[in-house]
Amino acid sequence: MAFTRRRMLAGAAAATTVAAPAVAQQSGEVRWRLASSFPKSLPILFNAAENLARRVDQLTKGRFKIQVFAAGEIVGGLQVLDAVGAGTIECGHSATFYYTGKDKALAFDTGLPFGLNSRQHIAWMMQGGGLELLRPLFARFGIVQFPLGNTGCQMGGWFRKEINGVADLSGLKMRIPGIGGEILSRMGVVPQTIAAGDIYSALERGTIDAVEWVGPADDERLGFQKVARYYYSPGWWDCGPQISLYINDKAWAALPDDFKAAIETASAESTMLMLAQYDTQNMAALRRLVGAGVQLRSFPRDVMEAAFKAADAYYREEAARNAEFRRIYEPWTRFRDEIQQWFRIAELNYDVFAHTQKR
Amino acid sequence: MAFTRRRMLAGAAAATTVAAPAVAQQSGEVRWRLASSFPKSLPILFNAAENLARRVDQLTKGRFKIQVFAAGEIVGGLQVLDAVGAGTIECGHSATFYYTGKDKALAFDTGLPFGLNSRQHIAWMMQGGGLELLRPLFARFGIVQFPLGNTGCQMGGWFRKEINGVADLSGLKMRIPGIGGEILSRMGVVPQTIAAGDIYSALERGTIDAVEWVGPADDERLGFQKVARYYYSPGWWDCGPQISLYINDKAWAALPDDFKAAIETASAESTMLMLAQYDTQNMAALRRLVGAGVQLRSFPRDVMEAAFKAADAYYREEAARNAEFRRIYEPWTRFRDEIQQWFRIAELNYDVFAHTQKR
Repeated sequence: MAFTRRRMLAGAAAATTVAAPAVAQQSGEVRWRLASSFPKSLPILFNAAENLARRVDQLTKGRFKIQVFAAGEIVGGLQVLDAVGAGTIECGHSATFYYTGKDKALAFDTGLPFGLNSRQHIAWMMQGGGLELLRPLFARFGIVQFPLGNTGCQMGGWFRKEINGVADLSGLKMRIPGIGGEILSRMGVVPQTIAAGDIYSALERGTIDAVEWVGPADDERLGFQKVARYYYSPGWWDCGPQISLYINDKAWAALPDDFKAAIETASAESTMLMLAQYDTQNMAALRRLVGAGVQLRSFPRDVMEAAFKAADAYYREEAARNAEFRRIYEPWTRFRDEIQQWFRIAELNYDVFAHTQKR
Repeated sequence: MAFTRRRMLAGAAAATTVAAPAVAQQSGEVRWRLASSFPKSLPILFNAAENLARRVDQLTKGRFKIQVFAAGEIVGGLQVLDAVGAGTIECGHSATFYYTGKDKALAFDTGLPFGLNSRQHIAWMMQGGGLELLRPLFARFGIVQFPLGNTGCQMGGWFRKEINGVADLSGLKMRIPGIGGEILSRMGVVPQTIAAGDIYSALERGTIDAVEWVGPADDERLGFQKVARYYYSPGWWDCGPQISLYINDKAWAALPDDFKAAIETASAESTMLMLAQYDTQNMAALRRLVGAGVQLRSFPRDVMEAAFKAADAYYREEAARNAEFRRIYEPWTRFRDEIQQWFRIAELNYDVFAHTQKR
């Protein structure tokens, strides 16, 4: 997913000319602005920041107000991390894997291909040391970060032709950003970066052969079902991706303790809410898509296995050359192995049985 | 699970003699007492209420304080719902399936055997109409309830002998309360209700043959590994059980909006935290148990299938005779079928692959 490239580009220029934020801090009041990387047309993603703002308002009896701006309104969608770090705005809502060009280690904040599922990622952040491991990395950018949403496992995207094996990926032009795209490029895919508003027509014209986005609830709005017949799962590169709240470190340090507590608890609640929204809305959207003729497919086993091997090789290479990636990768790997071992015993054991019974 | 029967019984008499709570409400301050159904010796469960209290204190700058009492200190562990409903105390922390003697429909608040997993249950509560469906039921008891914790899928418990098929359940004396016990009784098990402090010796003496509790992190503390060799999974009767916060409805109505918001957001955060604690602590505990000689087993397929059928029959019968159960069962069933269908497509598809790869 990388939802808002057109708006991101449109907003990039604006970001540099934004004035210092108007902050009314009389009588203990705080006014912040939040720049989202997401457009209002993707409401589950966009509303997570609004849910945060509404709760913080309630919790502080209106003494702490956060005004939420959609991608491109005051900051370009891909400039959110820079704008928050520079203090142009106090906070932002974004997906950290947009910024792996700065340091690949940032990907751990979102989650890695073939990494933790959503529940495991939340456990890592809250109790597995994830937040603490990531804090020094974000500190380099002048940011304190918190989880603010999770989409659950995404879909593998829209394909104009069936994928029956790794060979079918050769030369396939697919719109997929980030590390997922880098891994697929090792399997023959030619990853494309295309502005959001141009993807539909690129797919329609055959300029590209495939596109990954989020899942049924979001994808349906973009209309890909009209120009690509095959909808693949699972989105192994976005298997439990976190969306994050960035706060400028000086703005954070200046907050009173009760306002800090408001941010932390409201972010946790908003994270649960986003996941619950995707979990309850995806199936109905998928049923409509299938009703409109979409063919649902799972990636073939050999594609999954080749991608898994390519991902592991990628991580080992990155860890060898990037000390910051290695610093997080090693404890993350131990955590992943440990929690997956537990999930195999009870959680997944139950889930597999319960989900394969005929009622 | 039903952790505290001895304390519950010990506290039952005390509950009736507790004086009206000392509430200091000068200058907008609120002081509440919370009765837990859990002992301090089960810290992940017990601390969820303390995490709530600490956050509410922070969020309100000390104007709203909740004092947490362990099971039996002021109210017996199984009297929490009654004590909150009667207004003897303002709030409590308990597992609602303790109270299915009042109405079987209360079981939906915790979760049913072969029902939703933890993430699906949270989705049902937050976005699937669960909380709204349950509110009228709790209103009959004078209570407004919120999720305040979830254990994740539990273990199937400790057995002195191996279970190789349904026939091995015949006449088996097992400490298991609630609907799970009723379902197992249809398969030949003789469910037992035994005070927590007496379970260990009952198992050691062979008065009972098996016991279910929670999972490795909690079970290890109770020492069952010393008197039962086989540890089974999964705990299909507690496949994603919610722990709940009960608030007396008059006490709730009297709260200012910012205090209500503090309760709601802090409960959500504490729910995530409990799940994250179990998810990160269970494997290390299980490894220690296996190191001490415990034999890990999965229930045989025919046991799982017979239990699944028995559970479905139980629900249909209960829905036929109990209008309140039916009122919730029907939309719950639709939600379960819908969300399980979605999980099969992306979430579980990914999980099964990721958890079966050799790294």
